Amino acid sequence: MSTIKVAIIGASGYTGSELVRLLLLHPRAELVAITSRGNVGTPLSALYPRLAGIPGADLPFIDADMEAVVASGAEFAFLALPHGTAAAYATTLLDQGLRVIDLSADFRLNDAAVYEEFYGETHPAPHLLQEAVFGLPEVRPDAIREARLVASPGCYPTSIILPLLPLLREKLVDPATIVANSTSGVSGAGKKPDLALLYVECNESVRAYGLPKHRHLSEIEQELSIAAGRPVVISFIPHLTPVNAGIHTTTTATLSGSIGDVTAALRETYSHRPFVRLLGEGGCPDTKNVTRTNFIDIGWHHDSRTGRLLLLSAEDNLGKGAGSQAVQSMNLMAGFPETTGLQMV
Amino acid sequence: MSTIKVAIIGASGYTGSELVRLLLLHPRAELVAITSRGNVGTPLSALYPRLAGIPGADLPFIDADMEAVVASGAEFAFLALPHGTAAAYATTLLDQGLRVIDLSADFRLNDAAVYEEFYGETHPAPHLLQEAVFGLPEVRPDAIREARLVASPGCYPTSIILPLLPLLREKLVDPATIVANSTSGVSGAGKKPDLALLYVECNESVRAYGLPKHRHLSEIEQELSIAAGRPVVISFIPHLTPVNAGIHTTTTATLSGSIGDVTAALRETYSHRPFVRLLGEGGCPDTKNVTRTNFIDIGWHHDSRTGRLLLLSAEDNLGKGAGSQAVQSMNLMAGFPETTGLQMV
Amino acid sequence: MSTIKVAIIGASGYTGSELVRLLLLHPRAELVAITSRGNVGTPLSALYPRLAGIPGADLPFIDADMEAVVASGAEFAFLALPHGTAAAYATTLLDQGLRVIDLSADFRLNDAAVYEEFYGETHPAPHLLQEAVFGLPEVRPDAIREARLVASPGCYPTSIILPLLPLLREKLVDPATIVANSTSGVSGAGKKPDLALLYVECNESVRAYGLPKHRHLSEIEQELSIAAGRPVVISFIPHLTPVNAGIHTTTTATLSGSIGDVTAALRETYSHRPFVRLLGEGGCPDTKNVTRTNFIDIGWHHDSRTGRLLLLSAEDNLGKGAGSQAVQSMNLMAGFPETTGLQMV
Amino acid sequence: MSTIKVAIIGASGYTGSELVRLLLLHPRAELVAITSRGNVGTPLSALYPRLAGIPGADLPFIDADMEAVVASGAEFAFLALPHGTAAAYATTLLDQGLRVIDLSADFRLNDAAVYEEFYGETHPAPHLLQEAVFGLPEVRPDAIREARLVASPGCYPTSIILPLLPLLREKLVDPATIVANSTSGVSGAGKKPDLALLYVECNESVRAYGLPKHRHLSEIEQELSIAAGRPVVISFIPHLTPVNAGIHTTTTATLSGSIGDVTAALRETYSHRPFVRLLGEGGCPDTKNVTRTNFIDIGWHHDSRTGRLLLLSAEDNLGKGAGSQAVQSMNLMAGFPETTGLQMV
Repeated sequence: MSTIKVAIIGASGYTGSELVRLLLLHPRAELVAITSRGNVGTPLSALYPRLAGIPGADLPFIDADMEAVVASGAEFAFLALPHGTAAAYATTLLDQGLRVIDLSADFRLNDAAVYEEFYGETHPAPHLLQEAVFGLPEVRPDAIREARLVASPGCYPTSIILPLLPLLREKLVDPATIVANSTSGVSGAGKKPDLALLYVECNESVRAYGLPKHRHLSEIEQELSIAAGRPVVISFIPHLTPVNAGIHTTTTATLSGSIGDVTAALRETYSHRPFVRLLGEGGCPDTKNVTRTNFIDIGWHHDSRTGRLLLLSAEDNLGKGAGSQAVQSMNLMAGFPETTGLQMV
Repeated sequence: MSTIKVAIIGASGYTGSELVRLLLLHPRAELVAITSRGNVGTPLSALYPRLAGIPGADLPFIDADMEAVVASGAEFAFLALPHGTAAAYATTLLDQGLRVIDLSADFRLNDAAVYEEFYGETHPAPHLLQEAVFGLPEVRPDAIREARLVASPGCYPTSIILPLLPLLREKLVDPATIVANSTSGVSGAGKKPDLALLYVECNESVRAYGLPKHRHLSEIEQELSIAAGRPVVISFIPHLTPVNAGIHTTTTATLSGSIGDVTAALRETYSHRPFVRLLGEGGCPDTKNVTRTNFIDIGWHHDSRTGRLLLLSAEDNLGKGAGSQAVQSMNLMAGFPETTGLQMV
Repeated sequence: MSTIKVAIIGASGYTGSELVRLLLLHPRAELVAITSRGNVGTPLSALYPRLAGIPGADLPFIDADMEAVVASGAEFAFLALPHGTAAAYATTLLDQGLRVIDLSADFRLNDAAVYEEFYGETHPAPHLLQEAVFGLPEVRPDAIREARLVASPGCYPTSIILPLLPLLREKLVDPATIVANSTSGVSGAGKKPDLALLYVECNESVRAYGLPKHRHLSEIEQELSIAAGRPVVISFIPHLTPVNAGIHTTTTATLSGSIGDVTAALRETYSHRPFVRLLGEGGCPDTKNVTRTNFIDIGWHHDSRTGRLLLLSAEDNLGKGAGSQAVQSMNLMAGFPETTGLQMV
Repeated sequence: MSTIKVAIIGASGYTGSELVRLLLLHPRAELVAITSRGNVGTPLSALYPRLAGIPGADLPFIDADMEAVVASGAEFAFLALPHGTAAAYATTLLDQGLRVIDLSADFRLNDAAVYEEFYGETHPAPHLLQEAVFGLPEVRPDAIREARLVASPGCYPTSIILPLLPLLREKLVDPATIVANSTSGVSGAGKKPDLALLYVECNESVRAYGLPKHRHLSEIEQELSIAAGRPVVISFIPHLTPVNAGIHTTTTATLSGSIGDVTAALRETYSHRPFVRLLGEGGCPDTKNVTRTNFIDIGWHHDSRTGRLLLLSAEDNLGKGAGSQAVQSMNLMAGFPETTGLQMV
């Protein structure tokens, strides 16, 4: 079987480490370059002792030097970098003929003005925005297959968009009434030396943050608006809880159709998709069932007393919300079966 | 200073143990009787080694025999029992002249029909429903002072009702749009040998449950309706996260007034109340700041893009949500300063 | 490639669920029967929602009826049952020609009298004790390959025996001075409705238990004595900490040789073994690096001030300490490469 | 009742915050100055929202300027600073007539050469070493009462020294065989922006560290040697586990006397001491019973098979291991009852 050569730019954060784990084990990908400014020369297994003994885990980090990345023979590059930084690397690598899967926010928005509104910076590479494909494999697999540049979605957006999309397309919920409450594990905040992320500060703590206009709203509303065929603006309240990984999202909205229509629309859209598990009406997903996997579990409830739909989802913020979803896109781009290297439990 | 004699009926669960802790340390209460069918004869400190060395911790559990409780000289009795069971004890103790603070659901509802709808049982003592006072000390302190029977509120209801009440009274939010998402620590589920509550099952897990019609909705809607002056029906989604204690509630509703009016109404109602800490517009409460205390912390945000108010609160489900709020009511009933024995950190 | 048919007797506990997970994904094993008295007729994925979508996860539990197990065509059976119960099933299945891997204590001891001393019961099948092979694949792979009956070791014993064995064989530590302090995650206590195992009771808690004569001492001392060529008696202090899985063991003993000899002996014995990772002198293993794997990580230190060796190990109590080690033995018995289905991270 | 004025130098770390909590609530102490370079001008309750609403919590941090501290009228100063830094502040404050309780290592050792051996630095104020009193209130209360300068012990040392001391004095254990395995919560590592202390890095992890010659050995061995009347050298293995606070120590040593003598010696020494709870032979202390208190719980077991004593203790590393023990010393120094402001649960 053919294999592909793959690089990860920015492999020392939590998303980067999840990409490393998946790609080291991927039967059809060979990890040929990993970059981290602070770890040049260090082998992967020294930074991640968990990986010791895995074939390929002695690969050393190199500097974020795109010439070296190109020289490694990489055909695909994952960018696990902060927004604003990723765009320049993407431009260079695309020019050199690599296909790029960017896990930052840089190419998720179609409109540079929205980027500027939400990120407070002029977009660094607006000419690529039209070409970039928002990488939800369940939504636009064909575009991903052909893409040179995939903008892999954020963790919160994936958990909100996937359950809602079929319902907005079928006009089964009132878009003006959507409220999404999400709860994330601490790895979603990144691997950085921040007092607020210390064990003692996060343990035995539940709190909301980033209110009222979290940056992820921009991509959430973009995708919901496309599905609804008209502008959708929602309320989004992210919370932090003491788990390492996992996002649970509860979305409420007034029903426009019947709960049976909701069930039908979700089944129609997802029952043949390998990574969406529909728990059915009455189902309550649990983050512990999806950690370290590419699954998103979805359940729904009819709150008949208020006429609302309660839509619940669970995913791993580093998995379906970041690393494994990006690998799922890579599988599509490379012509591999979508589940290659991802079927885990 | 005068002191009162106090009994706890059902002192072996989590709420009971919090009452024990508070009352052992209370400078004006003497714990004279504690009941637990499974622990008759065992001293408090044997079941709760944490209490060893505290004066009074050698008090032995007795059976739930109301004659013995009366004989102990108790003037006040706390009932930390399942709903349906508490009512009979309350009736007996009231007949014997004790004042009763019931932490079950038995006397929280004004209407026996609503009790039957939500609890699936005929109310065991409907003649007491009109007399019982729903025990939110911030809402009706005078009625509590005079009460023979206080129905201390549930943990979720306290966290939802207190922030909303001034806003509904002033008609600052649209009652038809209220959605409350709550996250509770595991002690809220009680101390019972249930596989779903094992450490391994709850750790690294976030999940919703009890949808769409949690029993606590009955008392929530009763109190919100009184404040609004008309029937209020809301959506309520409780979640479980891996912390021992603490409830975080995020309530959203469409604003009818200005955010300034919201701030004014909350300050007007609560700025002089010792256990409500207003974090102001933009504030994000954190459960870790309220555990083991009687505080409820409240913050609020204007989601101007959607016209919604985001109302956040944090309390300890065993504290302001159960045990310490009940002691706060006892202080009022006994004529003590409201904060007696509760000012902790 | 040839595959084998496999049954799990007692598949609803934590060890059973880890076996299920590994065997469902095992490329050369087919899970044909799973038993659980309390879950007859329930498909695997209903008890373990995490497994939903995995091929084979719709297999229903059957009663612990050995005729049905034999009828399933199973060639190998794993017993994940309490001690005392496992022996009878083993006898029946061996008589029917199956090969048995028992994860209980029933066949770990060579001497029925020691079993009676430590377990307080007459051994239920003493005639099988000589045939049973104590299943440490790193110690006696050839005997395991040929075995009809493998007694897979306990979680604590694996973590203590593997690091010590080469040192006792080479007489590098004084056997009379061995003290092993182990710390286990809560899953080691099993999946049972016990108040002491509730989330709230285990969270924010560290405690020792089972002192001074934990049952696992019997198999630990048996294996250490064989290696030392004389009776070895040690002190063993198990502790419980709030992690789901993982055992960390710190063993101290007076050095008889040099620290260089220790390093040499460990390298000689283990450097070619795929599941033992030697972190070297000065290395500190961390349970988080081995969870959900079959690895045991080992580090060692020379405490020159006292003349002691500090020997540290980390493993997953459900992995190398139970489920995956049993599968490793199965791989040997079936003639598969030892790592088949186990190389995970 | 008379009160004293108190300052805390370095009040923004975990030990500092515990001192703040205790002294704000202390009925006979008034907190008049708190220093933190990074938080000058910030009120206490802004850094510690948990303290909001507590009288005195609006006190602003000042710079670590000893003139200002003296000007505040403080009679007692607590130093919660890194070793090497504390000594200079102590010297200045003593010169100004304050009494000083230092929670760093600077004055714990009698011998400047040992300080240099373990801390790698010349001692900054050797002239004060003979005057400084090692502040274990259970060991030398009279010296503490009179002291100008108390060196409050480290968290690990307290947990090891207190149980062993009576046994060494009575020659009931062989000093050459002492091995102490301790497990600490993460707050013991301090509040600093270190990737290794992030939530995700510490959660689901158990690991040893600081081997083989942890700095705390110096004070442990000093105190054990004084008690034994001859030099004692021990092995000490500290571990980190995912709890916020709490230290569990398991000490093993060969018994020289009978287990009955052990029980008698411990009871003789501690049964009248308010903060030492003896759980008796067979007792297993649990860190969850001592968190946020000044208690140390001690249990012991006779391992008759090996002739060893198993000695277990649990304390809060921020409580009896740091902040509350320092306040206990202050109570003695000020002539208050020893338990003033400390009796909590």
